[in-house]
Amino acid sequence: MIGPRFTTNPFDDDHLHEECAIVGIQGLPDVGAHAALGLHALQHRGQEAAGIVTSDGDQFHAHRDLGLVGDIFGEKSVIEQLEGTMAIGHTRYSTTGRPNLRNVQPLFADFEFGGLAIAHNGNLTNALSVRHDLVCRGCIFHSTTDTEVIIHLVATSTGGTVVDRMVDALRQVEGAYSIIALTKDSIIGVRDPSGVRPLVIGKLGDAHILASESCAFDIIAADYVRDVEPGELVVLDAGGVHSHRPFPAAPKRFCIFEYIYFSRPDSMVEGVSVYEARKRIGAELAREAPVEVDVVVPVPDSGVPSAIGYAHETGIPYEMGIIRNHYVGRTFIEPEDEIRHFGVKLKHNANRAHIAGKRVVLVDDSIVRGTTSSKIVEMMRNAGAAEVHMRVASPPVSHSCFYGVDTPDRDELLAAKLDVEGMRELIGADSLSFISIDGLYRAMGEPGRDADAPQFCDACFSGEYPIRLTDQENGNGNSKQLSLLADTA
Amino acid sequence: MIGPRFTTNPFDDDHLHEECAIVGIQGLPDVGAHAALGLHALQHRGQEAAGIVTSDGDQFHAHRDLGLVGDIFGEKSVIEQLEGTMAIGHTRYSTTGRPNLRNVQPLFADFEFGGLAIAHNGNLTNALSVRHDLVCRGCIFHSTTDTEVIIHLVATSTGGTVVDRMVDALRQVEGAYSIIALTKDSIIGVRDPSGVRPLVIGKLGDAHILASESCAFDIIAADYVRDVEPGELVVLDAGGVHSHRPFPAAPKRFCIFEYIYFSRPDSMVEGVSVYEARKRIGAELAREAPVEVDVVVPVPDSGVPSAIGYAHETGIPYEMGIIRNHYVGRTFIEPEDEIRHFGVKLKHNANRAHIAGKRVVLVDDSIVRGTTSSKIVEMMRNAGAAEVHMRVASPPVSHSCFYGVDTPDRDELLAAKLDVEGMRELIGADSLSFISIDGLYRAMGEPGRDADAPQFCDACFSGEYPIRLTDQENGNGNSKQLSLLADTA
Amino acid sequence: MIGPRFTTNPFDDDHLHEECAIVGIQGLPDVGAHAALGLHALQHRGQEAAGIVTSDGDQFHAHRDLGLVGDIFGEKSVIEQLEGTMAIGHTRYSTTGRPNLRNVQPLFADFEFGGLAIAHNGNLTNALSVRHDLVCRGCIFHSTTDTEVIIHLVATSTGGTVVDRMVDALRQVEGAYSIIALTKDSIIGVRDPSGVRPLVIGKLGDAHILASESCAFDIIAADYVRDVEPGELVVLDAGGVHSHRPFPAAPKRFCIFEYIYFSRPDSMVEGVSVYEARKRIGAELAREAPVEVDVVVPVPDSGVPSAIGYAHETGIPYEMGIIRNHYVGRTFIEPEDEIRHFGVKLKHNANRAHIAGKRVVLVDDSIVRGTTSSKIVEMMRNAGAAEVHMRVASPPVSHSCFYGVDTPDRDELLAAKLDVEGMRELIGADSLSFISIDGLYRAMGEPGRDADAPQFCDACFSGEYPIRLTDQENGNGNSKQLSLLADTA
Amino acid sequence: MIGPRFTTNPFDDDHLHEECAIVGIQGLPDVGAHAALGLHALQHRGQEAAGIVTSDGDQFHAHRDLGLVGDIFGEKSVIEQLEGTMAIGHTRYSTTGRPNLRNVQPLFADFEFGGLAIAHNGNLTNALSVRHDLVCRGCIFHSTTDTEVIIHLVATSTGGTVVDRMVDALRQVEGAYSIIALTKDSIIGVRDPSGVRPLVIGKLGDAHILASESCAFDIIAADYVRDVEPGELVVLDAGGVHSHRPFPAAPKRFCIFEYIYFSRPDSMVEGVSVYEARKRIGAELAREAPVEVDVVVPVPDSGVPSAIGYAHETGIPYEMGIIRNHYVGRTFIEPEDEIRHFGVKLKHNANRAHIAGKRVVLVDDSIVRGTTSSKIVEMMRNAGAAEVHMRVASPPVSHSCFYGVDTPDRDELLAAKLDVEGMRELIGADSLSFISIDGLYRAMGEPGRDADAPQFCDACFSGEYPIRLTDQENGNGNSKQLSLLADTA
Repeated sequence: MIGPRFTTNPFDDDHLHEECAIVGIQGLPDVGAHAALGLHALQHRGQEAAGIVTSDGDQFHAHRDLGLVGDIFGEKSVIEQLEGTMAIGHTRYSTTGRPNLRNVQPLFADFEFGGLAIAHNGNLTNALSVRHDLVCRGCIFHSTTDTEVIIHLVATSTGGTVVDRMVDALRQVEGAYSIIALTKDSIIGVRDPSGVRPLVIGKLGDAHILASESCAFDIIAADYVRDVEPGELVVLDAGGVHSHRPFPAAPKRFCIFEYIYFSRPDSMVEGVSVYEARKRIGAELAREAPVEVDVVVPVPDSGVPSAIGYAHETGIPYEMGIIRNHYVGRTFIEPEDEIRHFGVKLKHNANRAHIAGKRVVLVDDSIVRGTTSSKIVEMMRNAGAAEVHMRVASPPVSHSCFYGVDTPDRDELLAAKLDVEGMRELIGADSLSFISIDGLYRAMGEPGRDADAPQFCDACFSGEYPIRLTDQENGNGNSKQLSLLADTA
Repeated sequence: MIGPRFTTNPFDDDHLHEECAIVGIQGLPDVGAHAALGLHALQHRGQEAAGIVTSDGDQFHAHRDLGLVGDIFGEKSVIEQLEGTMAIGHTRYSTTGRPNLRNVQPLFADFEFGGLAIAHNGNLTNALSVRHDLVCRGCIFHSTTDTEVIIHLVATSTGGTVVDRMVDALRQVEGAYSIIALTKDSIIGVRDPSGVRPLVIGKLGDAHILASESCAFDIIAADYVRDVEPGELVVLDAGGVHSHRPFPAAPKRFCIFEYIYFSRPDSMVEGVSVYEARKRIGAELAREAPVEVDVVVPVPDSGVPSAIGYAHETGIPYEMGIIRNHYVGRTFIEPEDEIRHFGVKLKHNANRAHIAGKRVVLVDDSIVRGTTSSKIVEMMRNAGAAEVHMRVASPPVSHSCFYGVDTPDRDELLAAKLDVEGMRELIGADSLSFISIDGLYRAMGEPGRDADAPQFCDACFSGEYPIRLTDQENGNGNSKQLSLLADTA
Repeated sequence: MIGPRFTTNPFDDDHLHEECAIVGIQGLPDVGAHAALGLHALQHRGQEAAGIVTSDGDQFHAHRDLGLVGDIFGEKSVIEQLEGTMAIGHTRYSTTGRPNLRNVQPLFADFEFGGLAIAHNGNLTNALSVRHDLVCRGCIFHSTTDTEVIIHLVATSTGGTVVDRMVDALRQVEGAYSIIALTKDSIIGVRDPSGVRPLVIGKLGDAHILASESCAFDIIAADYVRDVEPGELVVLDAGGVHSHRPFPAAPKRFCIFEYIYFSRPDSMVEGVSVYEARKRIGAELAREAPVEVDVVVPVPDSGVPSAIGYAHETGIPYEMGIIRNHYVGRTFIEPEDEIRHFGVKLKHNANRAHIAGKRVVLVDDSIVRGTTSSKIVEMMRNAGAAEVHMRVASPPVSHSCFYGVDTPDRDELLAAKLDVEGMRELIGADSLSFISIDGLYRAMGEPGRDADAPQFCDACFSGEYPIRLTDQENGNGNSKQLSLLADTA
Repeated sequence: MIGPRFTTNPFDDDHLHEECAIVGIQGLPDVGAHAALGLHALQHRGQEAAGIVTSDGDQFHAHRDLGLVGDIFGEKSVIEQLEGTMAIGHTRYSTTGRPNLRNVQPLFADFEFGGLAIAHNGNLTNALSVRHDLVCRGCIFHSTTDTEVIIHLVATSTGGTVVDRMVDALRQVEGAYSIIALTKDSIIGVRDPSGVRPLVIGKLGDAHILASESCAFDIIAADYVRDVEPGELVVLDAGGVHSHRPFPAAPKRFCIFEYIYFSRPDSMVEGVSVYEARKRIGAELAREAPVEVDVVVPVPDSGVPSAIGYAHETGIPYEMGIIRNHYVGRTFIEPEDEIRHFGVKLKHNANRAHIAGKRVVLVDDSIVRGTTSSKIVEMMRNAGAAEVHMRVASPPVSHSCFYGVDTPDRDELLAAKLDVEGMRELIGADSLSFISIDGLYRAMGEPGRDADAPQFCDACFSGEYPIRLTDQENGNGNSKQLSLLADTA
C-alpha cells in the first residue's frame, strides 16, 4: 500500500462496550440542560450518538445527533428548544454498520392516544421474529433498532392506558431491557424480569430522576433513592413514584460485567460501590495469583481500581508505569513505514524511567481480543522491564453477549480460541492469570458461584444464557439486513 | 427595533409556488447523476430540499437533504453511492413550518413484499381523514407529509402485486397527484383521474424516463415521447412501458396556472409550448387592454414571454426597464434606517436611463399579495417614469389552491379583498388590467371557458374546485398539527 | 476515463472577466450592512471572495472570506462586528491558482502613523519588479497580490501625511488602478492617470460613497454625483469631498469593454448608460451585418440588450430562443456516457417550439475561446433551426488584457488563431459577423476610432497598450511564483 | 439572570498553562504525519491551535488551524499536501483575546535569500520595543505574536547566511525562547542562554528530531539523544547535527514548574524523569507536612504522581477518591437554578463510597486562583468526609510569569493576596500546607535553593526574574493592543 493510512476510532480499544445509557427526569426546570448533564455523566456507556426528548405537557421537543453529548447539546439554542419539565435521554454505542441518524434514540411516535418517546438500554432477543410478524401486518419500520418493535407493539395493542399498552408490548418481547419512556405528563421506567441492565431512581427536591447509574445524579446534585427492581415498572408524575409489578417473578440475573468494566467507579449499582467491588476483585486476584515483582502497574484507566486492590493486598508499590494521553482526535494518519503498535501509542506511553530494570505486574480489567495486551506488554519490554506479568480482573471472556453489549463474534474472542498458556504466549507475558469465576463471585460478597442458580448473569464467561435467544435459535441472529435501504453515512 | 434585521429568502417573491417536481429513470448507467440533472432542470418547481433513491436490483440507495440540487448532489462520493440503473427523484418547496429532513422525499419503506420508494407532486385532499383512520389502526407515521398515507395504504393492502397494492391505495385517496414510485426492478408512474399536475414520458436509447416537465429530458439529451394520461398508470421496466387504466374515467382538468407561471417556458406540457402559450396570453392581453405608452417593460424574469407577446401585438418597443441581479445569498442584513423596498432591490433595479421621462407599461404574469407590484411601480416612478401602467397575464387570483400549490390564505390574496380599481390604487399604477378568464382560455386555443365543463382547473381564479376537498369540509383543512413532536430546524 | 467526472464552476463560461469591484462609504450608520449591499450590487465583477473593513474612528474591523457577498455577510453577528461609520469593500475574481484567503482584499496594515486598508480594482504592470526591490530591502510580503506593493511603498515612504505617502507610492507604480483606501477618519479614492477602470462618486444625505459602478448606489437609495476623474485623488471625510490632482496629465483611455460586457446594464459609467450603449452597438451591428432570418435570439443574459438593439433596427421579431436556468450549484457530476455539451446545458436550453424550422440569428456580446458559441449553435441545430447565423457585439478579441481583466493566454483566444471564416467554420454557424472597431466607436458616439489617439483602451482588440507593460518586457509577466509557500485550498 | 448560561472551556481549570510546544524533523518520509504525531504527544502544552510547515527542498507547504492536533491533521488530504522530508510544527495555548488564525505558528516568510518558517516556545520580554522600532523603519507586521519580530529582524539583517541572520536577530531580543526554524534544506534549533524552556534532540535511524519534550520521540519510536544546551544553536541537515555557540555564556535557569506541572510525567527533561521528580516532591511534602488521615486522594490527573509519593512515604492508603470524566465537549449549558460548583462537576465526581466517614488528605500540584480547590474540598465534604486536608506539591504561586506561561494577573493569584491560613480558610480545608521552596529544590536533588545563584527559574514563587523585563519596565507590559485591527473570531 502506498501513502499514509488512517487509524480510525482510537478510543475503540480492546474492550466489551456497553451499548447505551438512559436518563429520565420528571419535574425540573431547564430540563433539557439537566438531561444533557445526566447523559454527559453516562458518556462512558455510549459515545457515538445521543438524543433528548422533552414534553411541555402539550407538545414534545426533540434533538438527536451523532457525536458526544457535550458537542450535541452545547448550543444554547439547542437546549432552549427542549421545552418543558420532563425529559428522557439516551446515548448510544452503535454496534453494526455505520452510525445512522434514523437509529438515534429516544424514538418518538404519534399514537391514537398521543405521543410517546422511548429510550432503551439492553437488547431484545426475539426482535427479528416480532419485527417480521409486524411487517406482515402492515407495519412500516423507520429504523433498524430492536427498540422500534416496542413502538409498533404499543401502537397495535388494544390496551386502554399507555401503561397497559406498554405492559402488553413488553410481554411479547424477550431479552434484557431497562427502558425509560416519556408521555405528555409522565415518565415510565421498567426493567426486564431478570434485571440484567441497571436502572436507578434519584430525587432532587420534588423532582424524580431515572438513570442507568447513580453518577448521573451526582452531577446535578440529586440523591440516589433506590434501584428499580427487576420486573418492576414505575411511573413518575406530579404525584410521585408509582410502582407496578406486571410481570411474573423471575430469578435476578444482574450483569456482573457492570462491576468489572461498564459502570463508572463512582457509581452505586444494585447497592454496591463499583470502585469497592473492583478493589476487592483486585485483592482476590492477588490472593489467587500472587507474583514476586517490584511494581504494580495498572493499564489505564480501567485497570486502576483493581491494581490499587492488588497493590494494597500485596504491599507491592503501585506506580503509574503507563501514561495516558487524553487528547485524541477522531482519526490519525499513520506514517507509511508502519511504526509498530501505532494505535496504542496514540493513547499510551511507557513511563520509561520507572519501568527500566523493574519486574512489573500489569493489572487490566479484561482481555477480549488480546490486541491491546500484546502491544502493552511489548511497550513494557521496550522500556526495559526485567519481567512482565499480566493479571486480569475477570475470567476469560469466551462467549458473546446478546443482552445489549457489543461483543466481537466468538471466533474473535481470544479465550474462545486459546487456553491460558496459549494466551500468555500470544501476548508475550512472563506469566498470565485471570481471576477464577468463583473468586469473582467471592469478591462480590457471595460464597461462590451457585451453579444451579447463578446469582449474576455471567454468560460471557460461562456460556449460560439466562434469557432465551429466540432469534439466534431461528438462525437469524447474525442477520444485520433489517432494511433494503443501504446504510449510508 | 434596534440593530439591523434579516431579510430572509429573497427568492420568495409574490408568486404562487409549485410545491414539487419529480423524475424517474429506468435503465441508465450513472443513474444518480442523470437523476440529479433531471432534478436540476426542474429546480424552479421546488428549491428547499431534494432527494434521490436508486435501486440496484437488490438493495436501495438514498440521499436526501435540504438545499438546492446542485449543492446536495455535487459531491462525487454522494453520486457514486447511488448505485443501480433505476432512480426516482424529488425536489420540494415546503409549505408549512420549517423545512424538516423527515419530510424530504422520495419516501422509502420496507414492506413484506420488499422495498418501495415514492415521490409525489400534488396534494391529497382527504389525507387527514385517511391518516386518522390509519393511526387508529396502529400505523406509525414518520413524517407530516400527505404522501405517507399512500405508504401505509400500500402496507395494509391485501393486493397481490405492488401495482395492485398501489392501485388499491390510490382508490382510497382524493386530490391531485402525479406520482413516481420505485420498486427493486421497475418504475411506476401515475396521474390522478383529473390529470391536474403534469407528468411526461421520455426516452433515451432503450431507457425510459418520467418527469414533471419535458425540460428535464433536454438536459440529458432524451426525447419527449408523450404525456402520461390522466388516470393512467404506467410501469417502466426492462420490457418497456406498460400502460394500465385502473381508475374510472373523469373529465380532464389540467392546471391552467402551469402555463401562466409554474412550468418552464422551454417545456411542452400536455402537448403545448409553455413559451408560446405565454406569448399568446400577452397578445390577448394587449387586445383586451391596450394602452398608449412608449415602452413595454417585463417584470423579470417571469413576465418576459407575455411582455414579448404584448410588444409584438402592439408594436410598442420592448425594453429591459428592470435589471435583475441573479447573485443572491441566503439572507441579507437590512440596515436599520430601513431603506424603502429593500427586499425588491436585492433582485431588481430600474434601468434609469431608459425609464426617465417615458410612459411605461409593465407586464407581469400574476398578482398574488400585491407586495412586489407596488414596490416595482414605485421603483419606476423614482426612476422618472412619466406614466406607469400595469398589465397582468392572468385573471385575479382570488381563491386558494388545495392541489399541490403553495397559496397564501384567502385573506392575504389581494383579489379576494379588493376590486381592480382598489388594487390599482393600492399598487399606485396609472392603470391596471388583468386578462379575462375567457381571454385566457382563448389564448389556450379554446373558444372560451365552458362554464358547465371547464377545460382546465382554474379554481384559483373561479373558486370552482374540480376534486372534492374532504379535509376542508371536515374543518381540518387548516390543521397543520399532524405530529405532537414540535418541528425544529 | 472511468466513473463520473466533475464539471466545475458552471458560471465560468466563455467570457473575459472583470477581476474586482470596490466600494467605499463615509458617514453612514450600519456601515457594514450598507457596504455589503453595495458589494452585492457589484457581484457580477467578482464572485470568488469578498471583504469589508470598517473604521470606528479608533479601531478597524474586518471580515473577509471566500464566496459570494450574500453568503459571507449574511450573518447578523458578522455585520454587527463591522463597527463604525466608514467602510471599504472589495469583491474578487481570482485569476491565478486556487483562491487563497491571504489574498482577499481589502488589505489592512498597521503603520507608524496608524492603520490603513486598501481595496484595488485593476492591475499594476510593474508590480513584480517593485516587489523584488522591496524584498531586497527587507520587506516581508504576506500575499501574492500586486496590491500589497502599495502597502509597502506607503510604509517605506517618508511622506508626512497619509495622502502624501499614498501619492508617493502610486508615483512608483505603473498600470491600471481604481483604488479605495480607508484611514481611521477618511476614505481615499483614486484613479490612474489614464482612467482605465471606472470609479464613481455618490451621495446619500450627508454621506459620500465611492463605487465601481453606479448600480451600487441604487441599492442603498444613494444618488450618482459624478465620476472620479482619471488621475484624480479624492478624500472623503466629515468635511465633504476634497479633490487632489497629484499626477501629471495623461490621455484618457477608459476600457471600452466595460460597455460591452463588464458593467451592469443599469449602470452609468463615464456619463453613459451601459444598456443604451449596448443597444446602439446592436443596432450598428445590424446595419453592418444584416441577415434575412425569422427571429433574433439573444444568448442570455449578456446578449440581450444588443439583441434588442438588433431587433429594433431590423424589425425582425425578438424571441427567447434560449432559456436560462438560474439555479446552479457549485459543481455537478457529469454522467460517464458524456452527454454532448453538458456544461452549457446546465445553464441553457433551446426553446424548441420556437426554434424548429426557423432561420435564427444569435446575438452575443463577444467570443473569447469560442467554446460556448459552438455548443449554442449546435443546440440550435438540434432544436431544428433551419439556419443559424451569429452576430457578435464586439470586434474579435485577439490580445490579452494586463489591466485587471482575466484573459486567457493569447494562444487560447480564437481570434488570435483564426480569421472570421475560420471561426465561422469552427463554431458551425451559417454566417458569422463581428462589429467593426470603427462601428463600435460610432456606437459610443465617436465619429470612429482616432488611430493616433484612441478615445478608449481597446488593447484586447487592437493590441495597442496605452500603459507600459514593464513586467512583461522584463520577461516576468508569466511568473506566478511570488512565494515559496505552495498555494493550498 | 434569566435562562441557562454557558460554561465555556471546561479544560481551563485552575492551573498555569504552558503556552506552546514545538517539534522539528529532518530526514523522514511522511514527514507531515510524523510531525503531527509529535505534536499530538505534546498536546498538553497547548490546545487552541496547531500548525506544520514542511519543505520539499524546493517549495514549502503549510497547514495551520485552530483546534486540537488530531482534528486539524486527521484528514489524509491535509497530511498528503505536506510534502517533503523536513518539517517543523507548533501547538499553541493562546494567552490574550480570542484565538486568531493569523497568530497560529509556525510563521512563514519569503526573504531575499529564500523561505524560512519559525516555531517558538517562550516569550520575548522586549518584543514591544523592538516591534516599535521595526514599524518605524517601515516593516509591516501581520500578526500580534512576539515571534514575528524575529522574522523582521532576520529580513533586515545584513548577515550572509541564514544562521548568521538568525543569530543577528536573536542577539537583539531578550526573553525566554526555544525556537525551531525550517529552511529549504535544514532545521535550526536554538535555546536562549538561560535555557528557561526545554528542547531535546532525538534520533530515528538517520533522521534527527527536535522537540519540547522526549515523549514526542516515544510516539514515533525515536530515541532521546540529549538536550539542546542553553545558548546552543544546532543545525540539522543531511550531514547530521552541527552545534554552534553564538551567545555569551549565562547561568542556567531552567523553569522548575516544568517538573511540577507543565511536562508530561513520562518525559525526561534536562536528564530528569518528570514522574520521578513529582513523586519525590510528594514524599518531601509528606515529610514536611504529615497529617493523620485514613486515605491519600489525588486531585486527578495532575496530582496523581505526588499523591503516590505522599502515600508511599507515609504508608497511608492511596485511593481514587475523585473520579474524572474524560469526555468533555467544548461548552455546556448550566441549568438556571445554579447547581453549586457546576464547572468542576463536569470533570470531577467524589467517589462517595470511599470518602464517607473518612479523614482525607487531598494532594494537588499547585494552587493558582484557588477556584477549583474550594470546590473540590466542598465536594469531599458533601460526600461525607470526616476531615479534609490539602497538601500542595509546589510553593505558593505569588508572581506572574513573563517567559511563555499563561499566568493570571498578580491580583488574581491567591497567594499574592492571602497568607496560608487565609488560603486555608477560603478553600475551607481543615489544614493546608505547601511544600517549601527549599524542600522543592531538595526534591530536585539540590541541597536547597542557592539564594545567590538559584539553580532554576522560580520567579513565579520568588519574584526573582532571571531575564530582564524590558517591556514591563517601559510600562508596556500590559499593552495588548499590537494592531489597530480588532481581533475577531
